[in-house]
Amino acid sequence: MAPKTVLIVYAHHSPTSFNAAAKDVAVQTLTARGCKVIVSDLYAMGFHAVATEADIKGKLKNPEHFLYAEETFTAYKEDRLSDDIKEEHLKVAQADLIIFQFPLYWFSYPAIVKGWMERVLTRGFAYTLQNTYDNGLCKDKKAVLSFTTGAPETKFQPDGINGDVNVLLWPLQNGVLHFCGFQVLAPQIFWGPAHASPSERKAMLEAWQARLNGLLEEQPLSFASSKLFDLSVQAGARLRPEVKETYASQPYGLTTGQHLGKPLPPNNQTKSPPNDKH
Amino acid sequence: MAPKTVLIVYAHHSPTSFNAAAKDVAVQTLTARGCKVIVSDLYAMGFHAVATEADIKGKLKNPEHFLYAEETFTAYKEDRLSDDIKEEHLKVAQADLIIFQFPLYWFSYPAIVKGWMERVLTRGFAYTLQNTYDNGLCKDKKAVLSFTTGAPETKFQPDGINGDVNVLLWPLQNGVLHFCGFQVLAPQIFWGPAHASPSERKAMLEAWQARLNGLLEEQPLSFASSKLFDLSVQAGARLRPEVKETYASQPYGLTTGQHLGKPLPPNNQTKSPPNDKH
Ligand SMILES: Cc1cc2nc3c(=O)[nH]c(=O)nc-3n(C[C@H](O)[C@H](O)[C@H](O)COP(=O)(O)OP(=O)(O)OC[C@H]3O[C@@H](n4cnc5c(N)ncnc54)[C@H](O)[C@@H]3O)c2cc1C
Ligand SMILES: Cc1cc2nc3c(=O)[nH]c(=O)nc-3n(C[C@H](O)[C@H](O)[C@H](O)COP(=O)(O)OP(=O)(O)OC[C@H]3O[C@@H](n4cnc5c(N)ncnc54)[C@H](O)[C@@H]3O)c2cc1C
Repeated sequence: MAPKTVLIVYAHHSPTSFNAAAKDVAVQTLTARGCKVIVSDLYAMGFHAVATEADIKGKLKNPEHFLYAEETFTAYKEDRLSDDIKEEHLKVAQADLIIFQFPLYWFSYPAIVKGWMERVLTRGFAYTLQNTYDNGLCKDKKAVLSFTTGAPETKFQPDGINGDVNVLLWPLQNGVLHFCGFQVLAPQIFWGPAHASPSERKAMLEAWQARLNGLLEEQPLSFASSKLFDLSVQAGARLRPEVKETYASQPYGLTTGQHLGKPLPPNNQTKSPPNDKH
Repeated sequence: MAPKTVLIVYAHHSPTSFNAAAKDVAVQTLTARGCKVIVSDLYAMGFHAVATEADIKGKLKNPEHFLYAEETFTAYKEDRLSDDIKEEHLKVAQADLIIFQFPLYWFSYPAIVKGWMERVLTRGFAYTLQNTYDNGLCKDKKAVLSFTTGAPETKFQPDGINGDVNVLLWPLQNGVLHFCGFQVLAPQIFWGPAHASPSERKAMLEAWQARLNGLLEEQPLSFASSKLFDLSVQAGARLRPEVKETYASQPYGLTTGQHLGKPLPPNNQTKSPPNDKH
């Protein structure tokens, strides 16, 4: 088997943090297995988190009405993206696996990681309007979210006050990673390392190390295949009626459940005004 | 009734965009109703999106191991936060309502808005470890997410390929806004304005204007009350058993459904290895 390349997109300020330790364990373990490991240390790089005109060299198509996706799509095709984006593109292009290592900030990745997604997952490079989900341009690559929390696991269980962690992961794993085609591996969650004992923290890092040894061979999470949806403009990319029927009586995965409308009760959709008092 | 103050946190590069038009309609309509309207035009302000040491003036508590939440909590109490954060705090302190106006970027708000959340919703100012959710420090304020999409509404219905828009809104509305106590108003969603006809766009803005006339009097979305959870460390902030029983047979709202574990099927939790092939 050819040696694999792993990109670690890492976002913590401090080299003495638990996140730094998790990143270091990944670098060491994967390097020892013969992988080429590249780290994008976003804070240390002073990575720009904001998508702006500065990301495009030369003339804008429409300076009067700047639209980031359109301008960067053109700039990508004409090789006029800023150097820092091009460097990240080169890293992603090589990578068989991307590990995102970060502390959970406001139920999501930190803004600096969000900015990486906005600036690096360029249309034309990571997806096109025709190439999304199963057909996303990153479909031969794997990706995994590896993160620490402040809260204990109980708070992020379905009956915990923060709600199910899988719900907050949906926009990140489906809407960003799977949208670009990435095969998304199960998230690696380090629950509340700051409140754990030294031996618990050691055990967390050892479990990560053990997982890393087989990470590249793991089966990705399952998402509903694009084929289940009628992608015509008229149908609006909704589940095909016959699929709904088939799946309704079957065990279903996260995303199929999502798409069957299981997660949400009928009385509190966005459109109907809420009738409960706060 | 005393005149109300509204803060609009606005994130679009271009003054000729649809987002700019939605922001302008809000400024005009609310001003005409006697409100004081303040706009934070994040791109124009060059708002820093990344939480760093630069947010703290003077000495760090622990420069060897920089932890943003801890350092900014202390700096807030000692009035040593950077001037741009203090300015935003002053605006938030005055506001009865905050409108976040932005284009949907990767199933969420843009990184520059994420950065605003990270830097402005400071511990001590917006919440404390004791003051979250119903008891969040912003509980006398309202907040609403007003955003445009590229995708049509069908794609964000429960059976649409992107999944239910309410799922992606959960971390933003519950995890950020409601966590700080904000009374969250139903989101204002402008579906695919770039693909709409001029008359459809006009109608969208008129509907927003009509809503704005009553926005400050709207009932917020309902979230499960903090009282339903056992907040003791032992119990880990999970739903009280008696509450589960009561709600199990009743109609439930988004968040209660969430907390009852309705959204997710038993066979695809984070912990159990996925067995479906991609
Ligand atoms: C803006 C903001 C928003 C946040 N939002 C959320 C949220 O929505 N939900 C939530 O749950 N949390 C939230 N948090 C909390 C945040 O997620 C945690 O503080 C963070 O995940 C902890 O990880 P860390 O790497 O910073 O831990 P650290 O505090 O750096 O590390 C924890 C402990 O591990 C020790 N350690 C370091 N290296 C090693 C090693 N090699 N071996 C063993 N131990 C080691 C450290 O010394 C320390 O004692 C937020 C924080 C901020 C700043
Ligand atoms: C990095 C990135 C990530 C993205 N991720 C997503 C995603 O996850 N999901 C998704 O659905 N979309 C996504 N998009 C698309 C994005 O959400 C849309 O492009 C955006 O919401 C459109 O809003 P706008 O204000 O930019 O529209 P514009 O293109 O500025 O406006 C649309 C139309 O309205 C017209 N208009 C302006 N002013 C007025 C007025 N006063 N009256 C009538 N018409 C007017 C404009 O001239 C134009 O014709 C993403 C885009 C980017 C750049």
